[in-house]
Amino acid sequence: MNAIRGIAAAEGIAIGTALVLPRFSWGDDPRTHVKAVETPEREVSKLLQTFEEVQQELEALYAQAQAKLGEESAKIVKGQILMAKDRSWIEGMTRLIEEQGVSAVSAVQTKVDELLRLFEATDNAYMRERASDVRDLGSRLLLRLQGGVREEVEGISGPVIWVANDLPPSLTVGIDSTKVMAWVTETGGRTSHSSILARTLGVPAVVGAGDLGEQIRTGQTLIVDGGAGLVYTDPDSELLDEYEEKLLALAAKDNQLARWKDEPTVTADGKRIVLQANIGHAEEAEAALKQGAEGIGLFRSEFLFMHRNDLPSEEEQFAAYKKAVEAMVGKPVTIRTLDIGGDKELPYLQMPRELNPFLGYRAIRLCLDRPHLFLTQLRAILRASNYGQVRLMLPMICAAEEIRQTHRLIEQARTELTQEGIPYDSQMKVGIMVETPAAALLMDQLGAMVDFVSIGTNDLVQYTMACDRMNESISYLYQPYHPSVLRQIHYIVEQAHRNGITVSLCGELGSEASAFPLLIGMGVDYISMSASSILAIRETAASLDSGKCERLAASVLQCADQEEVLSLLK
Amino acid sequence: MNAIRGIAAAEGIAIGTALVLPRFSWGDDPRTHVKAVETPEREVSKLLQTFEEVQQELEALYAQAQAKLGEESAKIVKGQILMAKDRSWIEGMTRLIEEQGVSAVSAVQTKVDELLRLFEATDNAYMRERASDVRDLGSRLLLRLQGGVREEVEGISGPVIWVANDLPPSLTVGIDSTKVMAWVTETGGRTSHSSILARTLGVPAVVGAGDLGEQIRTGQTLIVDGGAGLVYTDPDSELLDEYEEKLLALAAKDNQLARWKDEPTVTADGKRIVLQANIGHAEEAEAALKQGAEGIGLFRSEFLFMHRNDLPSEEEQFAAYKKAVEAMVGKPVTIRTLDIGGDKELPYLQMPRELNPFLGYRAIRLCLDRPHLFLTQLRAILRASNYGQVRLMLPMICAAEEIRQTHRLIEQARTELTQEGIPYDSQMKVGIMVETPAAALLMDQLGAMVDFVSIGTNDLVQYTMACDRMNESISYLYQPYHPSVLRQIHYIVEQAHRNGITVSLCGELGSEASAFPLLIGMGVDYISMSASSILAIRETAASLDSGKCERLAASVLQCADQEEVLSLLK
Repeated sequence: MNAIRGIAAAEGIAIGTALVLPRFSWGDDPRTHVKAVETPEREVSKLLQTFEEVQQELEALYAQAQAKLGEESAKIVKGQILMAKDRSWIEGMTRLIEEQGVSAVSAVQTKVDELLRLFEATDNAYMRERASDVRDLGSRLLLRLQGGVREEVEGISGPVIWVANDLPPSLTVGIDSTKVMAWVTETGGRTSHSSILARTLGVPAVVGAGDLGEQIRTGQTLIVDGGAGLVYTDPDSELLDEYEEKLLALAAKDNQLARWKDEPTVTADGKRIVLQANIGHAEEAEAALKQGAEGIGLFRSEFLFMHRNDLPSEEEQFAAYKKAVEAMVGKPVTIRTLDIGGDKELPYLQMPRELNPFLGYRAIRLCLDRPHLFLTQLRAILRASNYGQVRLMLPMICAAEEIRQTHRLIEQARTELTQEGIPYDSQMKVGIMVETPAAALLMDQLGAMVDFVSIGTNDLVQYTMACDRMNESISYLYQPYHPSVLRQIHYIVEQAHRNGITVSLCGELGSEASAFPLLIGMGVDYISMSASSILAIRETAASLDSGKCERLAASVLQCADQEEVLSLLK
Repeated sequence: MNAIRGIAAAEGIAIGTALVLPRFSWGDDPRTHVKAVETPEREVSKLLQTFEEVQQELEALYAQAQAKLGEESAKIVKGQILMAKDRSWIEGMTRLIEEQGVSAVSAVQTKVDELLRLFEATDNAYMRERASDVRDLGSRLLLRLQGGVREEVEGISGPVIWVANDLPPSLTVGIDSTKVMAWVTETGGRTSHSSILARTLGVPAVVGAGDLGEQIRTGQTLIVDGGAGLVYTDPDSELLDEYEEKLLALAAKDNQLARWKDEPTVTADGKRIVLQANIGHAEEAEAALKQGAEGIGLFRSEFLFMHRNDLPSEEEQFAAYKKAVEAMVGKPVTIRTLDIGGDKELPYLQMPRELNPFLGYRAIRLCLDRPHLFLTQLRAILRASNYGQVRLMLPMICAAEEIRQTHRLIEQARTELTQEGIPYDSQMKVGIMVETPAAALLMDQLGAMVDFVSIGTNDLVQYTMACDRMNESISYLYQPYHPSVLRQIHYIVEQAHRNGITVSLCGELGSEASAFPLLIGMGVDYISMSASSILAIRETAASLDSGKCERLAASVLQCADQEEVLSLLK
């Protein structure tokens, strides 16, 4: 028996069998997964099989393209087929695997990068275009190779506990939570993608557990205690008994919380606050409703754009937004426009490589720079507004001009739809995320330009503290309770109310029980969180006194540091 | 004749001959300089010569190491010699040059990276250590190859205008401004390293001018108009005459400004403000004094740590600080402790690779994590304080605890020095840079913990706007006049004065003539800037009315965006 300590990413307990996933995440430093995860022979055969599959995939695509798009478009596919059949290129990869013991994934990355460098270095426009073919082919190969991972997972009978270096979105999208009981990762923090997802799905998770290579083998029995950030390998019967009891207690607790499902959220002295859910896919709306959500406070539309090779059409987007809106039967659905960039990339958009992507070309910046892309989304959201209560929300606002430009584009979309006779809600509310100090400290002015604001605490903390929340070496500085963060939240609420608009909060802070009295005390109107936290927070609310909360909020604003704030909250 | 428009990085005019530098900057994406800058033959011969030179350098080092450090240490050098003589490795590089037409620099980078990946992937501790040898050897090779650049430059008789993709610090350190009249770069912005340096040296510069490969050849006559951000190639005689007249006018202006050299800085109505200089090397102190600096407001100590293979000793640091302190004959010298990380790397510190270095492990964060390194610097600064008026300044403060920890280390350094009988100024002032919203918005509390504060506007703008100032695709968002930035400056001054301490400002904003009335109006006490701007700003001060400035400052705080602020300032 062995206990491994990591970061408590998502509460809950799982007892089950470990499945150690091979290392892979696209765009990663290849050094992190150079080592072959299996024998070279196995890696070579995986590689060759993948090439065969991709060739078939491309041949099918070619036939389709010829029929539908004509020879000219089909030519592009033909180019990829030729590359996918290039024996010497493939041999180069197998040599890398055999001679240097690297993985198939790493071999593909190395050789694709090599070719990309060559193509991109030329001044010849035709050759430079070929680079995007290479990139596309590379993605196909890597997706397949990783698809292999998923097949392996699905091959296992019964649910398992995933053990991985990291879980890239490409692996977790559409994850089947009946087959994955919990996960443990070597890297990541409480607010990294896989942690947020775990909380949404209600899957226990421990992340940032350090090198697990020597410590966990596939097939081993594990206990994952997500709330404590602990993982036990080969637990003895005593510990197993203890945790089975805890599992029973958790189930009882879930039962008890269920009675809050259809209640409003009200403090003991009658102050009303609205609890909503954060979702990433339209499909989650129904689950959120079942967990007591009084609306969707954050629909992350970027997931519609990820893990594909082109932009989703207006129709596709409309269908997804409409689905979420209809699922919520009249309750508000707040759709955040495309928030891509930062740690979320869309290969097909060919975004610039950046030294500091979190301080870069992302979210509203990208959308305003590509008005055609943005307009398509605005039209789709407006169309969905006809089927319920839609609120449109703009991410990463820093300057008044960004709001003005967006308003002009929305106006254009409205005019177009009216001309086309397509219905939409002409009263649809438009709001902004407040997640930069620039927006927070200008709330008196910006509040007059929009219908609502929503505080994105994750980014607000990140920029206030100049601290990348993914960066483990400075994770002590990611301080959501730093007085300068709390003062900004206080100022946002004060100025938004002065402007007669409501304030929502949709960062991680929203689901922390210790933050809740503070947020009530500051006057936040809506809190949007992982659906799985809603019932527990609603129960907490019922025991709080809003006057006390207000006094607490006033006193934390005078603290000198996060430690002082935390000790006041206790 | 052709006019090229770029970003106005440093004022001034130069008329001279272009020298196009090969592309190089260490750690860059190799794709940007894959193309050979000369013929493959020339690149190969440069490569081979470099290897020979490095072999000789290492042999000499080996002899030295044997004599001074014993066989054990010498062994490490021996390992590098063996690698530097590895024929098949060198042949791999020449093949890359000959077959793919890449530059020698690129070939070295590719092959070194290849080896690094191999070494770093193994679990074997011995092999992993070899990786640092490979990195060291790689640096030696690249430094030499780039040294070749400098030799070429020095080989040219008479001064030239540098034309480059970018000017990395390694190329500009110790630059001889009598030989470089001006520079033009393809990338970069107003606040990138080479722009700041140009203003310090008073060298005209245009940056971010886009692809110059087709537009400028070595030997061509150029006019660089740094103030207008314009570069003319092969100017006709009319334009030449016009610019020669402008040059004369500039010289006359310099003459006129000279009378302000020994005057204090005072507004028309008698309000005193202190103008100081930013420097990077002790040698610049004297030049700053000659340009009328009333002290050094920012001594960037990190330059002492750069472009070398190990940490500078306490003695070395002490000598440099003392030199600057003595040069300023009693005027204050504000030494900022090591501000490394972000865009400034020290290869020998083996810092973690980061996704967002500007939001990462840098400055005070690194120093507090490596107390031994920090203590050495604190001791050296304390020792220098015995020779004049030293102020110690901490960069990137976010939390009270960082100040407390540093105070404990300073106390420890004091105790040690006292015990060793080494003199220091027991009254030495300790202050902080305010360059994160976290520190700015907590000034009421932090102001009580220090002797002075200095606003670092470059970083403060960057974090407030969530905008990397080096990132050209979002450069419109780097807004120093955004109301949220100005409100923070206002709050800092107000709260610092309430705490009875002075406020300095040492970012780029300090040397902008349009910002000056605003800073006076807000009550900033000291402004530290490029020495070359001091006299002009002092002349401006004499024409200002501080009451008007105060009213101006009050009104910009009510603006909705930067555009409104700028139109008020006009």
